[in-house]
Amino acid sequence: MINVVVKLSEKNLSTPEQIGETAKRLIEEKKFGRNVVAVVPSTELINGSLNKIAYTLSDRPTERELDAIHSTNAQIASSLLVIAIQKRGFKALSLTGWQLGIKSTRKTGGNARIEDVNGDVIIERFKKGEIVVVAGGQGIDEENNITLLGEGGVDTTAVAIAKSIGADRVEIYTELDGVYTGNPTEIKRARKLKEITYDEMLELSYLGSNIVHPRAVELAKKFEIPIIVRSSTRNVRGTFIKGEIEMEKNLIVRGVAYETDIIRFTVGYESLEKSSLANLFNTLAKHHVNVDIIVQSVMSEVKPTISFSIAKEDLANAVKVLEDHKKELGFQFADFEVGLAKVSIVGSGMVSNPGVAARMFARLYQENIPVKMVSTSEIKVSVVVPQDDMIHAANALHDEFGLLEELI
Amino acid sequence: MINVVVKLSEKNLSTPEQIGETAKRLIEEKKFGRNVVAVVPSTELINGSLNKIAYTLSDRPTERELDAIHSTNAQIASSLLVIAIQKRGFKALSLTGWQLGIKSTRKTGGNARIEDVNGDVIIERFKKGEIVVVAGGQGIDEENNITLLGEGGVDTTAVAIAKSIGADRVEIYTELDGVYTGNPTEIKRARKLKEITYDEMLELSYLGSNIVHPRAVELAKKFEIPIIVRSSTRNVRGTFIKGEIEMEKNLIVRGVAYETDIIRFTVGYESLEKSSLANLFNTLAKHHVNVDIIVQSVMSEVKPTISFSIAKEDLANAVKVLEDHKKELGFQFADFEVGLAKVSIVGSGMVSNPGVAARMFARLYQENIPVKMVSTSEIKVSVVVPQDDMIHAANALHDEFGLLEELI
Repeated sequence: MINVVVKLSEKNLSTPEQIGETAKRLIEEKKFGRNVVAVVPSTELINGSLNKIAYTLSDRPTERELDAIHSTNAQIASSLLVIAIQKRGFKALSLTGWQLGIKSTRKTGGNARIEDVNGDVIIERFKKGEIVVVAGGQGIDEENNITLLGEGGVDTTAVAIAKSIGADRVEIYTELDGVYTGNPTEIKRARKLKEITYDEMLELSYLGSNIVHPRAVELAKKFEIPIIVRSSTRNVRGTFIKGEIEMEKNLIVRGVAYETDIIRFTVGYESLEKSSLANLFNTLAKHHVNVDIIVQSVMSEVKPTISFSIAKEDLANAVKVLEDHKKELGFQFADFEVGLAKVSIVGSGMVSNPGVAARMFARLYQENIPVKMVSTSEIKVSVVVPQDDMIHAANALHDEFGLLEELI
Repeated sequence: MINVVVKLSEKNLSTPEQIGETAKRLIEEKKFGRNVVAVVPSTELINGSLNKIAYTLSDRPTERELDAIHSTNAQIASSLLVIAIQKRGFKALSLTGWQLGIKSTRKTGGNARIEDVNGDVIIERFKKGEIVVVAGGQGIDEENNITLLGEGGVDTTAVAIAKSIGADRVEIYTELDGVYTGNPTEIKRARKLKEITYDEMLELSYLGSNIVHPRAVELAKKFEIPIIVRSSTRNVRGTFIKGEIEMEKNLIVRGVAYETDIIRFTVGYESLEKSSLANLFNTLAKHHVNVDIIVQSVMSEVKPTISFSIAKEDLANAVKVLEDHKKELGFQFADFEVGLAKVSIVGSGMVSNPGVAARMFARLYQENIPVKMVSTSEIKVSVVVPQDDMIHAANALHDEFGLLEELI
């Protein structure tokens, strides 16, 4: 018998009607003779004013208690979905993180990570013919504290469950109906991919595609669990994420992604001796400034500079860290530029096609789009450009690399 | 070090301000050098529209899922209280039923009962100097299903915890500031008792006093755990519930209680042979009709009748059961009288004062109050009277048995 783990979207649970529709869809899977686990995210339907009350009581409520409060959201949502399934005459059961034995790391600021899932609890329920509905994104640590798994935690729960029960695949229900070569709302000719590799999906995820969280893709890659990304509401074919793709090998670039609100910092030094990449980025990391692209320019005629990009949220923190540590870091000046964006092309075919980056730069030059920073990996090239040029750049690159419907 | 279990009232958690006040009060206890466990009920503050959504999804949602949903209320309330305590610089920690290892019986309609509490979890926390806040009224059964303990479950949780950690006492915070000789809103001269025995409190509880649930009083009696009933908001002396009381032994009657909406059924038989108490009350019990007082009249001249009282909610059901089983029960007629109330006097001194019931009837006769039914136990006499005479009767009996301020 086939075991399927379905990760639901918030939309699947946004109204009582949607909950009813979602129940029907899971029942359809069950009728096909599959064992079904649904993993439920937190949903707005249940969202009360709890957070507000917590912050009325204290300006710094503790993480442990906030987690205990917020974990109830998915718990309630999963019970409501079970009630809707049972109403239609099918057996179902809700499970919280602790009921499913989802063991996590301790949480000391930041997110807890899943360490273990007791899949036997689900296997037992499959034997009784039950559809199992799990409250996603939560676990318990070694002291039985309730822990939230943070961003991407629900996707990761789905993949971890799939591993624990030997599921045949994970289905991720999303607002879109699959993975596209670019954001279809802004890239007019974006098309849906039939397949994509874990690595390509990882790059797309890290580049701001919100479809599957990279934590979940990494886990799926590690255990070779296929993921299907598909519509949360319509029963149409989605996109297969797996290790090797059979088709479309001739397509070098598989997708275009972009991200707004990038800030470029530039730090200048008197001399090469005084500059230390390690010192600078260790200090930033220690103070939780996430650095993305790093560019070091060492030309003999001029004084050396180091540029790096950060997200907008980290700006104030980065400025403070640099000010506080100016002396020990030994730099002469630091300035930053706002209003930038990152545009990336992704594709595993790039490895064997060294001219891809050059072709990207040529097209951007032809479109009069200035490139402020560059970063490359084996399957990705990212450029930082003015934010106003971002959509223009993405469309041009989509066109340049032939990501057109007829090519599929 | 003294260990105290405090059962909070809904009012203690009804607004963020109240939560703050409650935090302060628990901290005061802590400052006295006591280890404190607070047991939290469900509260209106958090009550969303969850029940409504559940019933939108299904007209018969399953008990398991409703329990999972409703258990989150006390879970959230306990975390909010912990946040308010921590805000004031004291250590605190919330525990759900399962985190505290509250094992309950399985739930198959009706309420789950507590089987075990793992007090070590709390003792460990005391060692860290933490105030422990427990979500009351919930546990888990042998299959790790979340179970609600139903009516009186929060009081019972408090007593069970006290037993598990060897607490010195349980404090029950209520709207009133103690146990009164009668309801002070209606009995003008009602006064607060300093002490009362478990048995007297049990009778008062069963007779409609909502201060401490009889399940909790029974458990406290079994393990000889003293209970103090006191104001949820003001720090004044309350009432001590314990095994033996030292003072006021001379006071025969300790309290007057009453209950409205009593219905008296009368069933008449052709002959004595045809009447069977066992048949009648077995049939009623099997169909969930709760019978309170039973009176059998067997006079040789007339045909035998059996009268019994029930609560208003059971009327429709009782009529149906009698109609459906008329033939097998063999009675000739059945009628009922509405608009009645029950008034009771309670006191352990009655055992050795056989004239108490007679004195009660004499006073009621003197007040022109007709007595419709009578029921006696070792420490209680109840009468059924017209509802319109109820308050009058209660005041008269309060006066008759000298339950006056100056006697204390």
